[in-house]
Formats: sequence, C-alpha cells, structure tokens
Amino acid sequence: VAIEVNLRSDNVAGAAPEILDALLAANRGTESSYGADRITARLQTQFSALFETQCFVQPLATGTAMNALALSLLTPPWGAVLCSSLAHIHDSECGAGELFTGGAKITPVGQENGKLTSPMLRAHLGRVAWGGTHQAQPALLSLTQGTERGTVYSLAELAELTGIAREHGLRVHMDGARFANAVAALGCSPAEVTWKLGVDALSFGATKNGALCAEALVVFDESLREPLRFRARKAGQVFSKMRFVSAQLEAYAQDGLWLRLAGQANAMARRLALGLERLPGVELLYPVEINEIFARFPKALIEGLEGDGIGFYDRGGGEVRLVTAFNTGPEQIDHLLACARRHPG
Amino acid sequence: VAIEVNLRSDNVAGAAPEILDALLAANRGTESSYGADRITARLQTQFSALFETQCFVQPLATGTAMNALALSLLTPPWGAVLCSSLAHIHDSECGAGELFTGGAKITPVGQENGKLTSPMLRAHLGRVAWGGTHQAQPALLSLTQGTERGTVYSLAELAELTGIAREHGLRVHMDGARFANAVAALGCSPAEVTWKLGVDALSFGATKNGALCAEALVVFDESLREPLRFRARKAGQVFSKMRFVSAQLEAYAQDGLWLRLAGQANAMARRLALGLERLPGVELLYPVEINEIFARFPKALIEGLEGDGIGFYDRGGGEVRLVTAFNTGPEQIDHLLACARRHPG
Amino acid sequence: VAIEVNLRSDNVAGAAPEILDALLAANRGTESSYGADRITARLQTQFSALFETQCFVQPLATGTAMNALALSLLTPPWGAVLCSSLAHIHDSECGAGELFTGGAKITPVGQENGKLTSPMLRAHLGRVAWGGTHQAQPALLSLTQGTERGTVYSLAELAELTGIAREHGLRVHMDGARFANAVAALGCSPAEVTWKLGVDALSFGATKNGALCAEALVVFDESLREPLRFRARKAGQVFSKMRFVSAQLEAYAQDGLWLRLAGQANAMARRLALGLERLPGVELLYPVEINEIFARFPKALIEGLEGDGIGFYDRGGGEVRLVTAFNTGPEQIDHLLACARRHPG
Amino acid sequence: VAIEVNLRSDNVAGAAPEILDALLAANRGTESSYGADRITARLQTQFSALFETQCFVQPLATGTAMNALALSLLTPPWGAVLCSSLAHIHDSECGAGELFTGGAKITPVGQENGKLTSPMLRAHLGRVAWGGTHQAQPALLSLTQGTERGTVYSLAELAELTGIAREHGLRVHMDGARFANAVAALGCSPAEVTWKLGVDALSFGATKNGALCAEALVVFDESLREPLRFRARKAGQVFSKMRFVSAQLEAYAQDGLWLRLAGQANAMARRLALGLERLPGVELLYPVEINEIFARFPKALIEGLEGDGIGFYDRGGGEVRLVTAFNTGPEQIDHLLACARRHPG
Repeated sequence: VAIEVNLRSDNVAGAAPEILDALLAANRGTESSYGADRITARLQTQFSALFETQCFVQPLATGTAMNALALSLLTPPWGAVLCSSLAHIHDSECGAGELFTGGAKITPVGQENGKLTSPMLRAHLGRVAWGGTHQAQPALLSLTQGTERGTVYSLAELAELTGIAREHGLRVHMDGARFANAVAALGCSPAEVTWKLGVDALSFGATKNGALCAEALVVFDESLREPLRFRARKAGQVFSKMRFVSAQLEAYAQDGLWLRLAGQANAMARRLALGLERLPGVELLYPVEINEIFARFPKALIEGLEGDGIGFYDRGGGEVRLVTAFNTGPEQIDHLLACARRHPG
Repeated sequence: VAIEVNLRSDNVAGAAPEILDALLAANRGTESSYGADRITARLQTQFSALFETQCFVQPLATGTAMNALALSLLTPPWGAVLCSSLAHIHDSECGAGELFTGGAKITPVGQENGKLTSPMLRAHLGRVAWGGTHQAQPALLSLTQGTERGTVYSLAELAELTGIAREHGLRVHMDGARFANAVAALGCSPAEVTWKLGVDALSFGATKNGALCAEALVVFDESLREPLRFRARKAGQVFSKMRFVSAQLEAYAQDGLWLRLAGQANAMARRLALGLERLPGVELLYPVEINEIFARFPKALIEGLEGDGIGFYDRGGGEVRLVTAFNTGPEQIDHLLACARRHPG
Repeated sequence: VAIEVNLRSDNVAGAAPEILDALLAANRGTESSYGADRITARLQTQFSALFETQCFVQPLATGTAMNALALSLLTPPWGAVLCSSLAHIHDSECGAGELFTGGAKITPVGQENGKLTSPMLRAHLGRVAWGGTHQAQPALLSLTQGTERGTVYSLAELAELTGIAREHGLRVHMDGARFANAVAALGCSPAEVTWKLGVDALSFGATKNGALCAEALVVFDESLREPLRFRARKAGQVFSKMRFVSAQLEAYAQDGLWLRLAGQANAMARRLALGLERLPGVELLYPVEINEIFARFPKALIEGLEGDGIGFYDRGGGEVRLVTAFNTGPEQIDHLLACARRHPG
Repeated sequence: VAIEVNLRSDNVAGAAPEILDALLAANRGTESSYGADRITARLQTQFSALFETQCFVQPLATGTAMNALALSLLTPPWGAVLCSSLAHIHDSECGAGELFTGGAKITPVGQENGKLTSPMLRAHLGRVAWGGTHQAQPALLSLTQGTERGTVYSLAELAELTGIAREHGLRVHMDGARFANAVAALGCSPAEVTWKLGVDALSFGATKNGALCAEALVVFDESLREPLRFRARKAGQVFSKMRFVSAQLEAYAQDGLWLRLAGQANAMARRLALGLERLPGVELLYPVEINEIFARFPKALIEGLEGDGIGFYDRGGGEVRLVTAFNTGPEQIDHLLACARRHPG
C-alpha cells in the first residue's frame, strides 16, 4: 500500500476525529443563531478557564480575519503596527489589516530566524518622530508565536519585547495561527505566554491543527469585547449557525486535545529534522521548534522527492518548506526519509 | 414524546444529512489549501452547469460577506446602492456594505410587501442629480429574492426592475439568502431568474437551507472573477481548508437537493399559513410565498404559544415572524396549530 | 450701471476685505509649515477665548472635510449618525462621512422646516435594537445650525435634542456651515449654542461668510485633539502653508467680524423675504431665520427674473432658493424686488 | 538690517506676487461654486495646452491629497504601489494612501540617491507571486520627480522605469510636489517627462513653489476624469469657492512663471552647494539637482549657524537639509555662506 506523504502545509490535512464528532453532536435540535447558542456561551467559560482569566472569544472563519480584526481593535487608523519582516499580516494577507484598520501602516521592523528581536524593536522606536502627524505612530506590536519560520519566542524574549512595547505605549497582538504548536513546544500555560506578558489579543488558530474551519480571536481586555463583536459582524464574520464553529473550538480546547494534536505535529517535525540533517547536502535553515521545517535541498533531492510523489513546498532557489500536521505519523516521516536517502545531492 | 417546534428563524435548524455526509467524505486524504483543492475546482463546473453559463463561485462564510463583497464589486465608492427599505444590506448587516465598498451609499427606495416596485425605482432615479459630485451616483440595484417579508419577485417584476436599472447604467445584485426558496416557489430555472434578467452577481445562500456554514457569491461576468478572488482574500473570507465549505455547497447543489430542501420549507410555511388564517384574530401581513410568515397575533396567542414552548420571533406590537426550515415536518406545524387553537384571541 | 444680483448661493460671493488684508499680511517673512506657524498658534488662544473654554481648532479646506472628520472622531465604524433627512452630511457630501468613519451608517430620522425634532429623535431611538450587532448602533447626533432650509434651532430645542442624545449615550456634532448666521440670528454667545449644550465638535464654517477657503473643526473635548490632528493629516487636509488659512480664520473671528458679516446677510434675507411675501403668487416655504430663502414662485416670475439676469437657484417644480451673502446690499435686494414686481404671476 | 535666512523648507516661504495678484483679481464679482466657475474652466484649456494633450486638472488642498487621490485612481484595494524607500507617500503622509485606496499596500522597493532604479524594480517584480491572492499585486509605480533627496530622474531613467512598469501591467504616478524644479532642471517640456513616458497621473505641486494653497492632480487618461471628480468630492477636497485656488494655479502656469520661480530656487541651491562644498568638514550627500541640499555638517557649523539665526533642518547625526525657495536671493545664500565660514568644523 502506498503511503501518502503531503507536507506542503498543515492546511492540507483534514480534521481530527474528536472535532468531527463534536460537529456532528452539535447538529442535534435547534439553537439560537448568530452566536446566541449554548455552545458559544460555554466557550466563553471554557476559554476563561483555559486562560485563567476572564476573556472573550469570538469564533471566526479564517486566520486573516483574526489578525485583521485584532489589528482594527488595537490601533487607530493613523497607527503603525510593528512586526517581523516575515509576518503573515505583512506579506500574506493581501492588505486585510490595512483595510480593517482604516489604513494603518503595517511596518516590518526586521527579523532573525523569523523573530523580531528586542534590539531591532528598540532601534526602530528610537527613530520614530513621535507626535509628528506626517508619520503613522507606532501603536501596536504584533508577534507571531510560533513564527513564520518555525521558531518560538521564549518567555524571556517575549517579556522583553512586550516590555518595550508597553514602555512606548504600544499594545500587543499575538498571531497564534500555530499557537498550540508554540505552547506545546514551550510547555508553559496559555496564560504565561499571553496576557501575563501583556498580550491584549490573541489570534487563536485551530484550523491548521485539526479543526475544519474554526479560528478564534481572544481578547483579554473587557473593553475590547463590544468593539470586537461589532467589528466581526461588520466584517461578515459572524456565522448564522455559529454553533458549528463553536463546537469545533470547544472540542479542540477540551481536555488538552489542542496540545496533544500540536505535540504530535511537533514531534514529527523533530523526527523529520533529525533525519534530514544527516543527509548530505541538506541544510536546515532555522531551528526546528514547532511543526515547520525550512531547509536547503540539493536539486537532485527536490526532483527525486517530487518524483516519489512526496508533497512539500518548493520555495525556489533550492529552499523547501515541510510542515507536519496533527495527523502526521512516524511511518510517513520514515517513508519520506527513506525516499530521500535514495536521492543523494 | 414532546415535539420541538422552533420557528424563530431558519438559522436555528441544523444541517441536512446529505451535506453532513459530504463534509465527512471531504475529510479523506489531503487537499490543497485556500481553494486550490479538487472540490472547489469541481464547484466551478457544477455551478456553470446549474446556471447554464460560465460563472465563478466563491465560497464564503456568511450572508453578510456575500452581500458586502458583491456590493464592493459592483459599485465604486461614490456610488449609491438602491434597495428596498427592508433590505438586509441596509438594516441588518451593521454597515458591512459601507465598509467593503469604501463608503458607498446604501439607499432605501421604498417597499411594498417587502418588494421594491418599478414605480418607486423610476421615481427615485428621476430625482437623481446625475453627474453632480455632491451626491452618490446610483450605480447598483440590489434585490432580495425571496424578500425579507417572505414574498417573491415574479420574473416579470424582475425583468421590469432590471430593465430600468440597465437603462440608467446600474448593475444588478441579487441577495439570495433564500434563493432556493424563491426558485422553488417560482418553479423557474436558476438562469431565468438571474443572469438572463441581467443579474451580475448572486448571493447564493446555503446555510439557512441546510448547510452548516456555506454561502457562495456567484458572478456571471468574467471580469468580476479576479476582483472577487482578491477582495474575498482581503476580507478574511478565504478558508484555508476550503474543501470543507465547498463540499457543503457541492452536495447542496447536487441532484436538486437545494430545491427539495427549500420546497419542503416552503410547503410547511404554506401549511402553517393555511392553518393560521383560519384562527380568529390572526392576520397574515404579507403573501406567504416562501418559508417565512409575518402575522399579527392576539396577545393571548403570543403568550399562549410561548407558554407551550413554541419558538417564534416576537417582533413587538403584536407582530410575529415564523420561519420554517428544510427539516420542518408536518407534525410540527400541526402541533403548533393545535396549540394555537387552544389560545383564542 | 447694471447691478449684479446673484443669490444662487453664498458661495458665489468673493471674500471680505478684512480677510483679504489678513491674507496679504500673512505673506510677510517666513513661517513654519504644516500648522507650526505663529498664526495657527494664536488661533488656539483666540478661539478658546471666543468660545470661553479651552478648545482645539483645526483649519480645513472644505465643509465636507469638517463634517466628515467630525463624524470620524465621534462615531466608531459600527455607529449610526442620526441627522435630519435634509442634512448636508447625508445627501450632499458624496458619502464622505461613510468613507472617513470606516463605514458608519448616516441615518436620516426626519425633519420639519429643516429641523430634526425631539419627538422624531425619541421615536427613532425607541426603535433601536441596542446591543444587537446586526444594526449600526446610534452613536452620534449631528445637527445643522442654521439648517439646510434657512431655519435655526432655538436654544431650548437644542437643549432638548442634546439631552436626549446624552441620555442614550450619543455624542453631538454641530454642522455650522452657516454657524455665524445662526449665532447672529439667536443673539447668543457661541458657547451657549455649543459646548454648554453638550456639543462635542463644531464644524465652524467661514468660507460661505466671507473667507476665501477657510473652514475649521473645533473640538471641545481635549481627548479629541490628537485624533483630529492625525485624522486631518491622513485625510490630506493639513495645508503646508497653513498660515494662509489660519490668517483668514483669525481675521474672521476677530472683533466680531464674523457676526457683522453674517448679520448683514441675515438682514438682507429678511428684507428680501418681506418684499417677496407681498408679491402675488409667491409663497415662502420656511421661516426665514438666516440668509436663505426657499420659496414657491409663479412660472412667470421665475422666467422673468432669469430674463433680467438675476441669479437664484431653480430647484424645479416652481421652488427656488435665494441666498444672501455678507456683501449683499440693500440696492441689490431692492433691484431684485423691483424686477420681480414687473413679472406678476 | 538683518537678513532673514530660513531654508528649513520651501514651505516656509510665502507666495509670489503674481499669484497674490491673481488671487485678488479673482475676488471681483460672483462666480459659480464647487468648480463650476470660469477660472477653473480656463484651467482645463490652459493645462491641456501646457501639457500638449487633452488632460483634466483637479485643484486640491494639499500634496497628500494629490498623491492619495492619484493612488486611489490607479490601484485597486488589493494592489501594491511600488515606490522608493524614501517616497513621501510611504513615510510622510500618515497612511493617507492606504486610507484613500481602501487598503492598498504601499511597498518601498529601495533607493539610491533618492531614486528607485531599474534593477531594483526588476528584481522586486521578479519575486512577486503573480495571481496569488495572499499578496497585494503590484498595480502602480509611483515616482517622485524631483526626488525626496533633491535629485532628478533623467528622461532615460524614467523611460526605462515606466517601460518596466508597462511590461508588468502597472500604471504610473508621478509625485510632482517639486515638479517645476525638476522640469526646470531637465529643461524638457512637461509632456516629455509625463504622459509621453507613460505617466497616467501627475501630482502637480504649486504651493512649495510660490502658491498659497494650490495643488492639482492632472490626469492624462480621459477615463480617470469622473472617478477623480467624485473621489475628490468624497474626500472633502472640492473647494466651494474654487476660483480662489484655480486662480493661483492659472497664474502659476501662465507665461512660464512656474519655471521661472523654480529656476530661481534651483539656481540658489546650486550657488549654496558650490559654497558649501568648499567648506572644510562639509559633505554633500547627494547630487544637488533641484532646490534641496542634504549635507553632513560639523557640529560646530550646525551650532554656529543656529546661533546666527539661520534656518535649516537638523536631521540629527550631523545631517542637515537646506531648501531654497522661489524667493530666495543671492544675498541670503551669500549671508549664509559668510556665516558658515566663521564656524570651521
């Protein structure tokens, strides 16, 4: 039997059985619409427990919606949003943040291994013409955790970055499209990596890690609740049968499922990384800390794997990306590595 | 056994089994993300066949997203969108249309039984200061089919309205949140009620009629395709695992399922209307042509039904709304009517 | 010598000599740009004295800019702006308010003699679905003083309207495109008709009343200052040589010039109204309280005056508008009336 | 008598006498409002002659308004606007372009001596994911002529850049805040440097070069005329007494005044540059091709000149900017140089 190995993205995977079961269970009987249902109500309690603080959860359709709504809550139209040069909000969301904020300036500040560093942030803030109306004023720091290069900010790094943000009056957003992978990697609590460090709003992704179509924006500041509810509606993001989205999130966050799924993906990425780095001519480009591997492959390896029907993302110039998912198994990793060994660089 | 009767909205119902099955089937294997999957590709062919013309379908999260994106495609920021005074785009979407269009003017023109009439439209257009930059210029006619009052535009009415629109250089949008109900009621083909009458874009609703979370914007003009793809992305409406939304739409549109589901809801509304109009003190406020009933109920009836646990929408002032769904059965209608007869006005 | 009489609008007039002199005087030497000049600094003090409270003045290019910026300061994107059905912000600014606010809903509530009335406002607010995200939430009351029909809100009327607004958590904007005319008519202080009644922001017009191109938005709430400065810049409204605009405003507000100019225009409108109402077949449509007259004229009179080269605005259907300006003189009014008497209806 | 020398910006200067005279002349009699006046009508003919092609001129309040409106005409909301890293539209307009375009992505591509180069542009375009909706799609090239560093694109450089733009389907905008200075420097015709090279819209600045408050957006493509008229109105940029702005532009463009004024400023900058480069420790940072000088000054020189009351812009780190204006005279330059010689580095 052929083993299918498709690591182009964690989005190519389907949904976890527990989440599908919850979806089917949500189909019984009738429920109020537009978020007034019982599942969505339970979500509020569940997430407040999960995050160890009163918070508000808005189920949403996509990662871009989470991020762009978060930006619109945390910066005025004349604000600048500081982020890493590789931030998804900057180069992969077709200007959604600019639209939802009414024209805020998304400003890449630099990056190293996918992370914004404290010196970069300080240097940028030191050059700002504060109060001068010709320049968008830094109003928000947006950090991706885990990053677009598969790395994870340590708690210390985050504390320093958010501290600098607060010193300068900036609010903080965390793009957690792969939040579960980061939390699983850090082994910390969700609270420790978010509001305890001053994060105001968290894009809490679920789709990449086993949901069908369920993302959520979590805000830790009560005053953001009403603006979020209205902005989500105005953006066409309030599902009429929201129960079906909330049910996915409920199952995802229950009994640690989200961390088990992410842990599996992370472990498979490590297994793959260990195998790859032993291959001649293969170079891992960044530390592999979550479920993403960026590597340089010899041409023969790229072509060979493609010929074997192995799915990965060819970024051009010899660089590839491989992303494991919640349902990637060791047999897939081992199959990929076995194939790879047959295509020496 | 108690019979649950909840007619507050068609959104309170769950999903049709055929659609759930399609969702589960879509979970097998891996698929490309962000709409590059095979199911989404098949949708294009399927809808082009269904509408008997080459068209483009963009799966979306909500009805508001469909409408607001359609408006943004069909009017410049300085345009006015003419609609009925009861149009959902005008008073139930929190200004989404204004946001997505960059500030177009959504302009209610009047209504009768939920419908915009030709004389109203002509009169309004006759008063416009064409070319004067102080006034938003009429650029788009938006018609809801079936309407927000449960009525349906006849093909002749539509032809006249869209004819007037074209005479004046306006494009035409159809808000089809309950498109299936309208087509089932008219017994016409989808083509006859849309592009053959000059409709440029159709909000093709599925969620109210048996999907979980699946709506689609259909454009009949090839030049709208790319703008729609990009605007949907920019609006945070492109699902990463789009296959799960497309699968719902595919099942919905297949083998006439959508019309069977809508036909059932329509039939149950008629059955209910027939029963209600025989009750003393009950007045039906509009012709019951799809699955919505607006009625005036005596106070005793409202209170009595509420006491019986029957779900309906109390609009205040003695007016109520009852909406049947794809899975409403005759036993529910008959139970409601039996209860109602026990609460004379 | 022919007397030119052009009462199509107060915008057809040129500038007052005092204001031209100030402009010329401002041309001496160099000044800092973008509002950092000395004249703009003096304006702040001058207006704070004029309004008997600390306020902030932003010089702007147009009336539409004043209004749209005011709206953007006082309503969130999901807010509704309540106004009279004849409000300039609603039907004469090409949707600028919708653009600058990020899609707020400008909502006409009704009118009587150009004025929104307290019962209308109360009735509208009584029907609002507060907290329901499907509807834009009333956030701002915008009143035009003097109105678009040449009438003036009394202090008592304003107090009642702004009181209702405050009760419901709405902020208050005053569109004062003809503020001077209204203040001159009321004989009150600028403070009494604005912040003392709860007005948060005032569009303080000067162009119609003798300036060349100088309008100003005045905010009475310190927290609106920075948002106004940045929004004005972002809207392309911060003149690089702002001194030339500020100089007009300074001269205008100095030593009561603005009220003298407006008083002249008002007096001429009264003189004209008195003459017109004695003419057979002429009907004044609204009380003439500032410098605008709306009247019904016999066809012969309209054609006759046009033949005489008298300028006025033919609104169609026998209705005309005549607007006097700061430099309209009695000889012009009397010439118009003499002509009119030669064209009996 | 003390000589005032203030070279902080060309915006610190007042207005040219010819322009003031025209302003005063425009004050005679009445004129139609909102651009329907005779002067604005004449402008169309005058500019069409000046540019040797039918074009449309929209008088505007500010440079930011010109640029942001131009962007809104030439890129869809999902477009990217490519520009130099120092472009005014990118870092000095508070995100006006993002607002007016509905969220387009202003994308700095690099710069050398203030200019975008062909290799930079080609390299950037070569990396674009064309058709991928996650990325804003390059839609517009915006070039500043003369640049933000006082340099000028040669006709050959422009031809190459606009050629690359056209190859890739991009439109072209020219930010001509200092267009007169650039044309004067090149000695070419306005046509040769704009539409003949494929420029679609030109921000034609006048304020920095002798007007009080008059800028104009010139479009060379007939289809842009109506969108511009409406967008200007919607942006609050249509002056009610437009004659006063148009009169400035008319005088400015008449009989070569604009080029004489710019030529004077350019000549004075050259005179200053020649003097400065002979001073020990002074380094000119860019070729001085128009009226702006960027230089590195010794600390003693900076402090000395400040002590002498000479106005210039201290950019920090030893860098300064000096800008001559239309009314800068040789005596001012020589006074500055004499002072400078007394403060050896």
